[in-house]
Amino acid sequence: MSGFSFTIQSELGAARTGLFTTPHGQVETPAFMPVGTLATVKALDPEDLTAMGAQMILANAYHLHLRPGDELIREMGGLHRFMSWDKPIITDSGGFQVFSLETLRKVSEEGVEFQSHLDGSRRFFTPESVIGIERNLGGDIIMQFDHVIPGQSDQVPSRDASERSVRWAARCLAAFTSSAPHGETDRQALFPVLQGGVHVDLRQEAGRALIEMHDWTGYGIGGLSVGEEKMAMYEILDVVNQSLPRDRPRYLMGVGFPEDIIEAICRGVDLFDCVAPTRMGRNGAAFTSVGRLNIKRAEFRNDPLPLDENCDCSACTRFSRAYIRHLFVSEEILGLRLLSLHNVHFLLSLARAARREIAGGTLDAWSRDWLSRYHSKALSQ
Amino acid sequence: MSGFSFTIQSELGAARTGLFTTPHGQVETPAFMPVGTLATVKALDPEDLTAMGAQMILANAYHLHLRPGDELIREMGGLHRFMSWDKPIITDSGGFQVFSLETLRKVSEEGVEFQSHLDGSRRFFTPESVIGIERNLGGDIIMQFDHVIPGQSDQVPSRDASERSVRWAARCLAAFTSSAPHGETDRQALFPVLQGGVHVDLRQEAGRALIEMHDWTGYGIGGLSVGEEKMAMYEILDVVNQSLPRDRPRYLMGVGFPEDIIEAICRGVDLFDCVAPTRMGRNGAAFTSVGRLNIKRAEFRNDPLPLDENCDCSACTRFSRAYIRHLFVSEEILGLRLLSLHNVHFLLSLARAARREIAGGTLDAWSRDWLSRYHSKALSQ
Repeated sequence: MSGFSFTIQSELGAARTGLFTTPHGQVETPAFMPVGTLATVKALDPEDLTAMGAQMILANAYHLHLRPGDELIREMGGLHRFMSWDKPIITDSGGFQVFSLETLRKVSEEGVEFQSHLDGSRRFFTPESVIGIERNLGGDIIMQFDHVIPGQSDQVPSRDASERSVRWAARCLAAFTSSAPHGETDRQALFPVLQGGVHVDLRQEAGRALIEMHDWTGYGIGGLSVGEEKMAMYEILDVVNQSLPRDRPRYLMGVGFPEDIIEAICRGVDLFDCVAPTRMGRNGAAFTSVGRLNIKRAEFRNDPLPLDENCDCSACTRFSRAYIRHLFVSEEILGLRLLSLHNVHFLLSLARAARREIAGGTLDAWSRDWLSRYHSKALSQ
Repeated sequence: MSGFSFTIQSELGAARTGLFTTPHGQVETPAFMPVGTLATVKALDPEDLTAMGAQMILANAYHLHLRPGDELIREMGGLHRFMSWDKPIITDSGGFQVFSLETLRKVSEEGVEFQSHLDGSRRFFTPESVIGIERNLGGDIIMQFDHVIPGQSDQVPSRDASERSVRWAARCLAAFTSSAPHGETDRQALFPVLQGGVHVDLRQEAGRALIEMHDWTGYGIGGLSVGEEKMAMYEILDVVNQSLPRDRPRYLMGVGFPEDIIEAICRGVDLFDCVAPTRMGRNGAAFTSVGRLNIKRAEFRNDPLPLDENCDCSACTRFSRAYIRHLFVSEEILGLRLLSLHNVHFLLSLARAARREIAGGTLDAWSRDWLSRYHSKALSQ
């Protein structure tokens, strides 16, 4: 009926490969989703993403609400048509962005009052208003509006935020249901966001509450990679893996450094997004299989090697480090494009490789080797 | 013997279609050559240029000498390999750039002393040193070092610069010949530059002197579109057309607004280059068949039309004015790319269209109609 389904294709410990079907096509999981905050993955063209095998991208409700406006995007036929991307799209709710504003926001049970980072205008987001925004945008998956807090928060504020997120999930669900199209299939699905900080009991309680509330199409895992220790994140992922229904996709929000993707895949996560590959790329940093590389360093001035000798992206198969360094030194736009392209390709490939290793039953050895080589950081930081 | 040839395929009045063969492939003329000043056509990828049908591009000796250095490019295998472009490349000599520095330069018979626009360091270009730079870069066509002056210059300074350019052509030729590879085919060809400002007699004298000096592979036409009236440029092109040998390609340097390309093709010009399409693109201006359009204007906020309804470029076939305006308002890099792509495609297509109309015998009527529609400027400036 819904146009959405999730089929697990193979399992290995907590890890799994799957096929997530949406109204705009299928996503082979585990998968990395490039971030197109403002309806564009920065410095890249949608054709680049297709060529790299991206199957789903993320856009951001907060940013698009402010600019160009979700009503305008609806008027222009929705996000897919607006940005010329006909594959699946997920929209984040803006919970994380509002959280990031820090001093500019005030949280109440009703919602969050904040000031636009663009013009300082006062705005008010509620679970209901955010669902309205995400309905206008038209993403395949829309995330609930949640209450995000810093990763090292204590039990009391963590419980407060986690329980509020559960209550807001219920309000989002009600708003989502009441705004469903009449007499035709809903081409959008709502994911709740599991909060609870680094507190095992809160994560478990939130998981139980969400599962009791509704038979969700999938689940977001929020409030991680927001300042807590890496080991704390991995431990929480173990808990979450046991708390969430096995037959639904799990999306770890905002997480996307290579080591985190591998660790999380081993703990049952299916979907990832992160601005790191494009943001780092614009700053001249490249992921490589032996650690990070900063292309602006003088040592690369006459280096004929590609960014990563083990990479088959369209930057590495065509250009030397010397050329890309020249582009950065000269502030040429192609430099931003090539590093962004390489980094996004790197994470897409990493998730695809993990998928193969799970199916082949070799994930453990592969991930150990991969992480050991990556952490060797033979190259300059 | 040389790997270079030029075959005229059809003629119509002064206009002609031709096939210019170089060691890196053929160029169907008339042709527009996108400008890759620093070994990259700004905001575009070489793959974009190939997809748009660009057959030859221009790079700049002055800029590449300063950054990253022509010696480095030679070390990296030459410009084609460095920038991953295996089709023909022409390098400009830096004459125009040194001229543009104005107060920072001093011209003598020996050469030009100038200060780098990057770090103020003192440099000295001579015809011989520039040939050395262009040899290092390895472009198929290399331009002589010439003495460029403002377009409205009087007879005396124009004669001085024009005659000096002829003398420098002889010195460039000597340096070029003495630096030719021993025992193998020279994969580079040197073009002289015809100067003489807007003075008919100077253009004719310079033409005669260059023709007597050597049997050149082709000719540059310099010192136009540098401040003189458009009609003066067109009149000089009529003179140049009669002064230069019919069976050699003529390259009108730095000229590339749509109306100028058409007028010059009608007057026997074969090759063009201009930074306008990418520079304008980065500023939000698009060429269209009915005049220029500034995408940042508020009227395009919710405009579902493409930049130009008559355009089949990969921006116009995918994106609305509303989306591209959003990209510019949000300062997204994809906006720079899409407008640059559209504008370069526009000029490439224009030259291809002119080529068809010459071959079909309909250039006159077509160019009249085209210019009339273009000058109607129905769209906002």
